Amino acid sequence: MSKDKQFVKEITPQQEDFSRWYIDTITKAELMSYSPVRGCVVLRPDGYEIWELIQRELDARFKETGHRNAYFPLFIPESFFQKEKEHVEGFNPELPWVTEAGGEKLEERLAIRPTSETMIGHMYANWIQSYRDLPVLINQWANVVRWEKRTLPFLRTTEFLWQEGHTAHEDEADARRETMQMLEVYREFAENVLAIPVIVGQKTPSEKFAGAVDTYSIEAMMRDGKAVQAGTSHYLGTNFAQAFNIQYLDRENKQQYVHTTSWGVSTRLIGALIMVHGDDRGLVLPPKVAPLQAVMIPIGPPKTREQVLKRTDELFAELKRAGIRVKVDDRDQSPGWKFNEYEMRGVPVRIELGPRDLDNGVVVLVSRVSGEKRTVEQANIVEEVRKMLEENHKLMYERALKFRDEHMTDVDSLDEFRSFLEEKRGFALAGWCGSDACERQVKEETGATSRNIPFEPKVRKSACLVCGAPAAHTVVFGRSY
Amino acid sequence: MSKDKQFVKEITPQQEDFSRWYIDTITKAELMSYSPVRGCVVLRPDGYEIWELIQRELDARFKETGHRNAYFPLFIPESFFQKEKEHVEGFNPELPWVTEAGGEKLEERLAIRPTSETMIGHMYANWIQSYRDLPVLINQWANVVRWEKRTLPFLRTTEFLWQEGHTAHEDEADARRETMQMLEVYREFAENVLAIPVIVGQKTPSEKFAGAVDTYSIEAMMRDGKAVQAGTSHYLGTNFAQAFNIQYLDRENKQQYVHTTSWGVSTRLIGALIMVHGDDRGLVLPPKVAPLQAVMIPIGPPKTREQVLKRTDELFAELKRAGIRVKVDDRDQSPGWKFNEYEMRGVPVRIELGPRDLDNGVVVLVSRVSGEKRTVEQANIVEEVRKMLEENHKLMYERALKFRDEHMTDVDSLDEFRSFLEEKRGFALAGWCGSDACERQVKEETGATSRNIPFEPKVRKSACLVCGAPAAHTVVFGRSY
Repeated sequence: MSKDKQFVKEITPQQEDFSRWYIDTITKAELMSYSPVRGCVVLRPDGYEIWELIQRELDARFKETGHRNAYFPLFIPESFFQKEKEHVEGFNPELPWVTEAGGEKLEERLAIRPTSETMIGHMYANWIQSYRDLPVLINQWANVVRWEKRTLPFLRTTEFLWQEGHTAHEDEADARRETMQMLEVYREFAENVLAIPVIVGQKTPSEKFAGAVDTYSIEAMMRDGKAVQAGTSHYLGTNFAQAFNIQYLDRENKQQYVHTTSWGVSTRLIGALIMVHGDDRGLVLPPKVAPLQAVMIPIGPPKTREQVLKRTDELFAELKRAGIRVKVDDRDQSPGWKFNEYEMRGVPVRIELGPRDLDNGVVVLVSRVSGEKRTVEQANIVEEVRKMLEENHKLMYERALKFRDEHMTDVDSLDEFRSFLEEKRGFALAGWCGSDACERQVKEETGATSRNIPFEPKVRKSACLVCGAPAAHTVVFGRSY
Repeated sequence: MSKDKQFVKEITPQQEDFSRWYIDTITKAELMSYSPVRGCVVLRPDGYEIWELIQRELDARFKETGHRNAYFPLFIPESFFQKEKEHVEGFNPELPWVTEAGGEKLEERLAIRPTSETMIGHMYANWIQSYRDLPVLINQWANVVRWEKRTLPFLRTTEFLWQEGHTAHEDEADARRETMQMLEVYREFAENVLAIPVIVGQKTPSEKFAGAVDTYSIEAMMRDGKAVQAGTSHYLGTNFAQAFNIQYLDRENKQQYVHTTSWGVSTRLIGALIMVHGDDRGLVLPPKVAPLQAVMIPIGPPKTREQVLKRTDELFAELKRAGIRVKVDDRDQSPGWKFNEYEMRGVPVRIELGPRDLDNGVVVLVSRVSGEKRTVEQANIVEEVRKMLEENHKLMYERALKFRDEHMTDVDSLDEFRSFLEEKRGFALAGWCGSDACERQVKEETGATSRNIPFEPKVRKSACLVCGAPAAHTVVFGRSY
C-alpha cells in the first residue's frame, strides 16, 4: 500500500462535497499525485494511460483528416509575444520566464510556451512561399505551461499535456472549413470515445482565444452542474499571418496573407470524464479509454483454486488475443475486497469465475455502470465482454445526456437564473443582447459565464436576460471549471 | 518550394565535408529547420515521423518487459539538485532557470529538467513503502533541456525529446538485471530496427552518468569514423535512494534503501541513423522507421497516363491495405526529377509503372540501398515490396558493419593510434591501465575519448597504450559527437 493511499480512507459522497469526492477518487485510484512544484501534478501510470488512449484515438483522426505531427521549441523569445497585441495581453500574466541559463544571464528572456501560435507562425513564414505550399496541416503533442493562480488536478494545472493543431490556408473559406472540421472531430470523439455529450457552439467575443477572430468550443456538464470547456477550435483570420508576415504568392502571382487556424484539447479531458461519469464508489471509466477494460477474479475455496486458476488463465489468454485490455487478479485478498477495489478504479467489466461456473462452462460478467450480473457461456466470452463494453459506453452516454437534460433549463431573467442555480445547479439557455456589459453582469450576479452560443439550442429566446433588449443570440450560461 | 530549400542547391559530398553533407541532407530532406531559439531545432513532419516510429517500436518493447509510462513535472526545484553531489556537479552548468513567473519573482528558482532522477526519486519516496510495492517499473516520454555550448541538429540540441526509464528494486541483483535487460533492449532495437551495429559495453568511471554507480552504453560508428553514444543504461545503486530517502520495509520487516536504475535514448538516434546510412545522394532510411517505405511513380506519355494512373491507384490501395507506408506521386515533374527527389529523401523502395509494364502485368522495383532494379509481377506486389524492404534492412546492416570493421583496429601505443586516426579515421581497441591520467592523455593527444569497455572485444590487449603498465581493461577509443 502506498503512502498516498494511507491518507484516503473513504471516498467522500458526491452530494456531500463534490470537490472532495473528486480529489479522493483520483488519489485513491492512483491516477495522479501532487508534485513538489506548485500547481504541477504527476500523471501516474493509470492516469497517463488514459491519456495515451486518448492520444491514440485522436491522433488517428488527425491523420485521417490529412494532418501530420511536428515538434517546435518549448522556449519562445519575449519579442515574439509583442507581435500580436491581443495575444500578449491574454497570455503575459501567465508566463514563466527563463532569465538565466548555462551560468549566464540571457540577453532576451525566454517564455515557456503557453501555446505555440507565435513560434509556429514564425516558422510558417519561412516555410510557406507559394499557394502550392498550402494548406499546411500540422499538429503538435506537447507540454505547455500557464502560471495559474488556482489549480485543480487535470482540470487546471500549471504544466499540462495537450495537442495543438496549427494550419495555414489560402483563404478564409478554406480556413473556416478546417476550423469547423476539427470542432466536429472533437465532438465526435467526445461522444463516441469518452461517452460525453457536448454542446457545440461559438464563444462570445469576451471568451474567445487571445488573438482569434472566432473561437468555437465543445462544452460538457459535470455531475455538480458545472461546465468544462472540453475542446476549442479557432479561426485566426490573418492576425498571426500579419504579425509574423506569413505571405504566399497566390494563383494570380500576388502576395497574400495566409489564413490560419488552431485547435486543441488537453489532459483536462481526463478530469472531465471523471466528473461526468464517476459515482460514489469511485471512477467509472469509458471502455474505450479504460487502461483495464476487464478484470478477472477467481473465486471459491482453496481446494478448487488451482483448477479455477487454470481455466481463468486460458480465458484470459483468449481475451488478450482478442485485443481486450484485461488482467487476472489472483492475489490473496478476499473477492469482496477486490470487487470494491476495481469498482473504485472504474474497470468497466468484472469477470467472476468459481468452481460451480467451471462445472457449468460459464462465467459471470458484472457491469460497472449498471451493476447487472450476467451469466454467459465461456465459449462466447470474447463477444460477451465486447458486448458489455459497448453497452456500458452507450449507457454512460445516455445517463450523462439525461443528467444534462435534467440540469438544463431556459430562463428569461437574472432572478430566474439565480434561483435555478440555487435549487438545481446546471446550465441555462438565455437570450443575450450581445453587449459585454450584460454578459459581465450575469457573471457578477450569478458566478456563471457564457459557455457558448450553441449551434442547436433547444429553444430560441427573444429578449436579453439582463436588459430585456432584443436578443442577438441564445446563449448557454453556466458556472465553469 | 519552401524558402529553406532555395538555399540548398546541391548536397556536399561526404568525402569533401561530412558536416556540410549532414546539414545539407537534413535540411534539403526537410527533416528539421533551425528555430529562432539558440540551439533548438524544429522537427518537421518527416523528421518527427521517424521519431514517432522509433517511439512505437521502443514503447512496445518497454511494455513487453513490464514497464508503464507516466509523466512528471518539467520543473525541478533548485534544492533537489543539491541532494546528490555528483549529479549537481554534472548538470548544474547546463541548467536553464525559471526565476520569474506569473508576474512575480519566484522564492526558489526552478530548473528545466535535464533528466528526472531527482523529481522521480522524490515521488518514489512517497509511493514506495513495502517490498510489495517493488519493483516500480516506469518510463517517461518527455522533452528535456541542456544548455549546450555547441549544438548540432538531432545529435546535440538545447531541447531534445527522449525517453527516460526509472526503476526501483529490492536489491542490487534485481536492479543490475534490469540495467542489463534494458541495455539489451537498446542493442536489439538498434540492430533490428535502425540497422545500426553497436558496440555494447561499460563506460569508464570518468564517462559515466553523474550519480551512477555504473553506466553501460551502445556505441555506433558514423560514416566519418566518429562515434555516437546511442543509448545508455545506468545502475544507480542506492545513491538516489539515499539522497531522496526512498526506503521500504523488507521481508524481514527492516527498512532498506531501494536500488534504482535509469536508461534512455533520444532524438539523437535520428542523427545517428542518418550518419550511419546516408550517402552522397542524401538519406537512406532504415525501412522500419521510414515515414514513406515505397513511392509509386507512374511514367510514360500523356496518352497512356490515365490508364497507368488507374492501375497505379489499384496497386497503391493493395499496398496500403497490407500496412505498407506508400504514396503515389502523380505531380507534373519529370520521372527523373522525382527519382532524384525520393532518393534524396531516402525512401527505401521506388515503384515504377509505365504503359509497357501495364501490358506485361509487371512493375519495376528499385532499391534505394543497392540501386538494383527488379521487374516483378503485379500480382505479387505486396510480397515483393516486403521482400525488398527486408533485404534493404539486411544490406544496410551489413554495409554498416563492414564499414565499422574496416575502420576499427587495435593499437599498442598513442603514436600508433594517432597515425590510425590520421590515415583512416575510426575506433581503436587499446589496453588501458585504469587511471584517469592515462585516459585524459589519450584525449589531449588524439581528441579521442574512451567510448566503452566492450563486453566482447575482438582482441584483448595486455598493456596500457599510454603508460605501458598492465592493462586493466581493453577499451574502445574514438572521437565522438
